[in-house]
Amino acid sequence: MKKITLTLVSLLIAAASSQSALAAEKVYRWKLAETWPTNFPVFGDATKNMAKMVKEMSNGRLIIKIHSKNKHKAPLGVFDMVKAGQYQMGHSAAYYWKGKDINTMFFTTMPFGMIAPESYAWFYYGGGMELMEKVFSRHNMLSFPGGNTGNQMGGWFKKEIKSLEDLKGLKMRIPGFAGEVLAELGAKPTNIPAGELYTALERNTIDALEWVGPSLDLRMGFHKIAPFYYTGWHEPGAELHFMVNKRAFNSLPKDLQKILTIAMKASAYDMYAQSVHESGKNLASINKDYPNIQIKTFPKEVMSALRAANKKLISQFEQKDPLTKEIIKSQRDYLKQVRAWTKISDQAYLNSSED
Amino acid sequence: MKKITLTLVSLLIAAASSQSALAAEKVYRWKLAETWPTNFPVFGDATKNMAKMVKEMSNGRLIIKIHSKNKHKAPLGVFDMVKAGQYQMGHSAAYYWKGKDINTMFFTTMPFGMIAPESYAWFYYGGGMELMEKVFSRHNMLSFPGGNTGNQMGGWFKKEIKSLEDLKGLKMRIPGFAGEVLAELGAKPTNIPAGELYTALERNTIDALEWVGPSLDLRMGFHKIAPFYYTGWHEPGAELHFMVNKRAFNSLPKDLQKILTIAMKASAYDMYAQSVHESGKNLASINKDYPNIQIKTFPKEVMSALRAANKKLISQFEQKDPLTKEIIKSQRDYLKQVRAWTKISDQAYLNSSED
Repeated sequence: MKKITLTLVSLLIAAASSQSALAAEKVYRWKLAETWPTNFPVFGDATKNMAKMVKEMSNGRLIIKIHSKNKHKAPLGVFDMVKAGQYQMGHSAAYYWKGKDINTMFFTTMPFGMIAPESYAWFYYGGGMELMEKVFSRHNMLSFPGGNTGNQMGGWFKKEIKSLEDLKGLKMRIPGFAGEVLAELGAKPTNIPAGELYTALERNTIDALEWVGPSLDLRMGFHKIAPFYYTGWHEPGAELHFMVNKRAFNSLPKDLQKILTIAMKASAYDMYAQSVHESGKNLASINKDYPNIQIKTFPKEVMSALRAANKKLISQFEQKDPLTKEIIKSQRDYLKQVRAWTKISDQAYLNSSED
Repeated sequence: MKKITLTLVSLLIAAASSQSALAAEKVYRWKLAETWPTNFPVFGDATKNMAKMVKEMSNGRLIIKIHSKNKHKAPLGVFDMVKAGQYQMGHSAAYYWKGKDINTMFFTTMPFGMIAPESYAWFYYGGGMELMEKVFSRHNMLSFPGGNTGNQMGGWFKKEIKSLEDLKGLKMRIPGFAGEVLAELGAKPTNIPAGELYTALERNTIDALEWVGPSLDLRMGFHKIAPFYYTGWHEPGAELHFMVNKRAFNSLPKDLQKILTIAMKASAYDMYAQSVHESGKNLASINKDYPNIQIKTFPKEVMSALRAANKKLISQFEQKDPLTKEIIKSQRDYLKQVRAWTKISDQAYLNSSED
């Protein structure tokens, strides 16, 4: 009897302690829907980097499986799928949702707006995160910075832009709000799926296009058929974003919430550093293999006209909604304050440099 | 008998499961020595931010207690204390250790070198981390980026610098390698403890000094007594660093190693965003309350002479050690590649801006 009891005790102890280990190590399995195709460089690295950090820091207690657009087939359905809880998380760009809620538009980048370091300062220390929370909580979601592309190039042009006249009737692939600004100057903005862009440019269906910058443009081959590459004005520091369904987030234990939040933050910052790196590397390739490429800035009169058109359209938004007005004011005031610093530090330093 | 057995079983189960919970939740208690005084702004926020993230992500399994210089009394002893294992971690600036190992000097910032985003790209994607590991593993430590100050200002001057002549005999507080460069041009660099700087400048013991930038300069009050504030050349993106004793790091379970590494990374990036924010905010205060302050760049001939002196001194270092040569070559090649990108993106964009 004694022996049987002890065996029973041992068995029960083993069961109890393994159950306790299980309770402490309950595994949460999440799915993330991203707007990008499978293994898309840089943007897709940000989601993989985030999921890997979460897995390792949580010792396997939070596993995030990534579904690219090849799997879910709804690159612009990510907002709705996360809102509905079909996916716990998404990775996309906030300005894609401006048709659903105009206030989402301001959390990626704005024409003539902040560059990446200024934008991170605004998000984390200048009130940006609080405003983004106000916007996305209306949709039962949390939103976090998801990786910065750096300053995007103004695009590849088949002909040089010498004056405002050259923009009249110019067929250019440039989606979203920047396209509306350009339309004010008489250009004809269009959107064309990524896979058809090269052919459209080659066959003169379009005269110009903007994509991202050297980090992602090199593999598209545009430099082979459009020799003028312009500095941008329209997306000076495009920040992608992670969306998280609020109920799913709240269902996580506190430590996993923290692990997830910090992994998103670190992978966003990492993507900015990676974008700077890839841009430098790929620009060197373009310059080496295609010395005919001319890198230019738009003429002053073009920039002034774009700036005026942008101001006009933005002031129309301000009338729409008190929250819109609050966001625009926050960004305008912050840009004024932080840019004064950028001017006397990095800008003045770079201008004094011979490198 | 049955009842007694069951009670015994219950007790044993309770004991076993609480023991198992304890094993899974062994608490590691670490100490970090920082070079800064208690509650030093920005730099001290980086260590607090890191320790808080670690505590929350690890659910209290890794607790890092911060000792400021007020406690350990050895601001420049941090390297030795972490190397010896007296502290598991430290937070300081790598170039403080150039007297112990010249190769540590290159991992903070270099005159005429990279700005912060370029520097992060080099650390994480351009081979910088691997070189830093080579240097610090010789000292039984790991080293990680620990927060960027942004572009440091060239200093507060009582008189305007109009030509090279004005540098001859100029008594300036500017420590380290940048002081050596300035000495080549006939200036008299000195180092003076922080607490005595204001009085030294007021009483003309020194004619000029550099500290950090508006983020930390405002509280020092230099703008009240030295009206010329110059854009820098000597520390274009100073990165602090975390040191970790290698044996202590290896004694942590894998998930805590990861939590610590990512918390250090996120808090370093955060400090850069905070530096940008504080600089913008404090510059606005200085401009508002002290409109007599003149913000300037050094004349072209001064910049050229500084650049030439810097090149000469750097080329002397190259002879010292194959690893020194490797680091200098890596930074020089990387700067060339990445700066070409910065020029056509942020620099060209900022130069086209009217803000």
